[in-house]
Amino acid sequence: MKVTCLKCMKCGKEYPDQPDRYVCDDCGTEGILDVVYDYSSTKITKEEIASSKDYSLWRYAKMLPVKDASMRAPLQVGWTPLYKAEKVEKEFGLNNVYIKDDGRNPTASLKDRASAIAVVKAKEAGATTICAASTGNAASSLSGFAAAAGIKTVIFVPKRAPKAKIAQLMVYGAKTVVVDDSYDRAFDLSVEITKKFGFYNRNCAYNPFCVEGKKTVSFEMWEQMGFEVPDRVYVSIGDGCITSSIYKGFYDLMQLGLTNKMPRIIGVQAAGCNPVEVALKTGKFVAQDGNTIADSIAVGIPRNRLKAMRALKNSNGTCISVTDDEIRAALVELPRSTGVFGEPAGVTAFAGFKKHAKAKDIKPEEKVVVLITGNGLKDIDSAISVCSLPSPVAPDSETIEKHVKTLI
Amino acid sequence: MKVTCLKCMKCGKEYPDQPDRYVCDDCGTEGILDVVYDYSSTKITKEEIASSKDYSLWRYAKMLPVKDASMRAPLQVGWTPLYKAEKVEKEFGLNNVYIKDDGRNPTASLKDRASAIAVVKAKEAGATTICAASTGNAASSLSGFAAAAGIKTVIFVPKRAPKAKIAQLMVYGAKTVVVDDSYDRAFDLSVEITKKFGFYNRNCAYNPFCVEGKKTVSFEMWEQMGFEVPDRVYVSIGDGCITSSIYKGFYDLMQLGLTNKMPRIIGVQAAGCNPVEVALKTGKFVAQDGNTIADSIAVGIPRNRLKAMRALKNSNGTCISVTDDEIRAALVELPRSTGVFGEPAGVTAFAGFKKHAKAKDIKPEEKVVVLITGNGLKDIDSAISVCSLPSPVAPDSETIEKHVKTLI
Repeated sequence: MKVTCLKCMKCGKEYPDQPDRYVCDDCGTEGILDVVYDYSSTKITKEEIASSKDYSLWRYAKMLPVKDASMRAPLQVGWTPLYKAEKVEKEFGLNNVYIKDDGRNPTASLKDRASAIAVVKAKEAGATTICAASTGNAASSLSGFAAAAGIKTVIFVPKRAPKAKIAQLMVYGAKTVVVDDSYDRAFDLSVEITKKFGFYNRNCAYNPFCVEGKKTVSFEMWEQMGFEVPDRVYVSIGDGCITSSIYKGFYDLMQLGLTNKMPRIIGVQAAGCNPVEVALKTGKFVAQDGNTIADSIAVGIPRNRLKAMRALKNSNGTCISVTDDEIRAALVELPRSTGVFGEPAGVTAFAGFKKHAKAKDIKPEEKVVVLITGNGLKDIDSAISVCSLPSPVAPDSETIEKHVKTLI
Repeated sequence: MKVTCLKCMKCGKEYPDQPDRYVCDDCGTEGILDVVYDYSSTKITKEEIASSKDYSLWRYAKMLPVKDASMRAPLQVGWTPLYKAEKVEKEFGLNNVYIKDDGRNPTASLKDRASAIAVVKAKEAGATTICAASTGNAASSLSGFAAAAGIKTVIFVPKRAPKAKIAQLMVYGAKTVVVDDSYDRAFDLSVEITKKFGFYNRNCAYNPFCVEGKKTVSFEMWEQMGFEVPDRVYVSIGDGCITSSIYKGFYDLMQLGLTNKMPRIIGVQAAGCNPVEVALKTGKFVAQDGNTIADSIAVGIPRNRLKAMRALKNSNGTCISVTDDEIRAALVELPRSTGVFGEPAGVTAFAGFKKHAKAKDIKPEEKVVVLITGNGLKDIDSAISVCSLPSPVAPDSETIEKHVKTLI
């Protein structure tokens, strides 16, 4: 698709399509840009998509703002499984509940969809180093893709990032700065350093092209459901980028005449860090101190809130919150009923779905997708905290037999 | 394919095809059975395979010993990426080096290929509980598949299993027995308990059908290389099941007339636990105390050694070993050059490949596949041990700028 311009979400100012154009000159970091397309110049059919043998997000290459296939990092990203969750359906008396497991991406989170695009854009811009700030997943994702593509990375993470995510950065060889402060401060520092050193920046709430990569998750939901748009999508909200991306994907499909339906996008936040829920209800944004077990969405100042709130409003969606106890419960309920092991922020969407399902707020026939954004192996300590590890048992047959009887 | 019989690897005795037939009555646990097919009854073509839209191991359903598709667990397993490793090629002056990333399976290891089959076989046998012993990956795999399929599990792991793997068991709700002893003892206890309680057993070196699931990794290498068989496959060896399975896959392809070539299978063991290497060199098997960072292959008594050694001999392969320091080095070298993060046992195969490549033991034109059997997120502590985590840095701009200068 041909990009018409990059348009400020706040003041509407338009900028030409350049790989290193980030935010609006007038509005600063609040002036997030939207990638605007000339949809009329693209003809694409369901049959054409269905016939593709590329089972990665690049099957939708025509609908992405990148051209040169030789610039792609050689990692297989996207086309993650969509499972019909029959046990969950039975539990809640629903007929069409699906789990989209984006923890199956190369570095085990949905963030890989954005990194795939960012690496190409960095090359287009002629950059040799990519910089990012991240609660952890975007960082480990970028470092994996940069390693595969042969680009250097400087990454800022807050001190609360789980060690599995920091370890991923280190094994991929990223130059890592652990900021002795919050994600919000790490974000600001990454933007400063990007400018000072002439790096390419991959912050999803700063670089408008990242949302374009993530929107492919909507294309996949649509195609995997037999080219049907679900009625609802549940997704957890941190910076708001994934929420924005889900909307953008379905928006593209509508503009291209491939559907005339937008699903209701239901954002789910942690009760300990719910600035989007508050802003949506009161009409006023107030920064918070993020405090939740779900580290990936412990974002007190959601940088992409304008795009996210547009997505929630325009899709007739909403934003709800769940407690850390509900998130902890979902950490085991989801894998036990579906086989999908998600990280705390990943299962937050499931906790939100459950809240609505229990309240009979979902009609039996509604088609619901719960998006799991990161793999549970990313944060083993949280998983262990909800299911204590068993003690070793003496290895003689008699003791073991007695012990097994207590288990079954 | 029609199963002719289950045949003892040791004495040659034949048994009828039953889902709960494990080992030879006469030879005990050393009498591993081989699933023997009537290949003449199956006609399958490359075109038929290539036209399948099922991008999972079930695209090879005709070549597997299970029939009823409704018994499958609803998890997407197999069809993992095969990457051409260009940076690695350049480093060693080779032209055709591929990485097969089986850490991309649902529970993040190759073991999912066996679990997919075991769940169906347990249902065929009418069992409601599956039992297994495992160094960790097979256990977490089984527990994930059993959860998705609605079957109970009782699982024995040795006390040295990494906590990420035990945590996976717990989140999936497996009844877990941590045996205060080695994997070898856990194995024996699992067989005892299986018999006493009438469970179904999924130990891959006991249940002959598990190898049949894992053999699909060879089908995929072949298809993903454009229906060509590689010249060499590097794989780490613990119990010897994966080695056996790689052989069985290519053996099937030869018997079906789909190729006439068997790759050289190069087994790689840890120097601290190399009973297969010793047995192959001396012709004599001696049990060892497993001692290596690569927990998944810390197997002092490889239960499937007969099948594994047949695979190595019949493929004109060999078995080598690498030190724990070489494994540690591979833990970061592989992700930094390919973007693939493997667990210690997974990258052991890469360490073995490097040893041969450095010794100029591989010709430039040879087609080499290095099989990565498990995801690095399974054992973060080992990863951290090779790349120390950075200390937090004060969040003021000046300090951060100075710090970034030291990194780039």
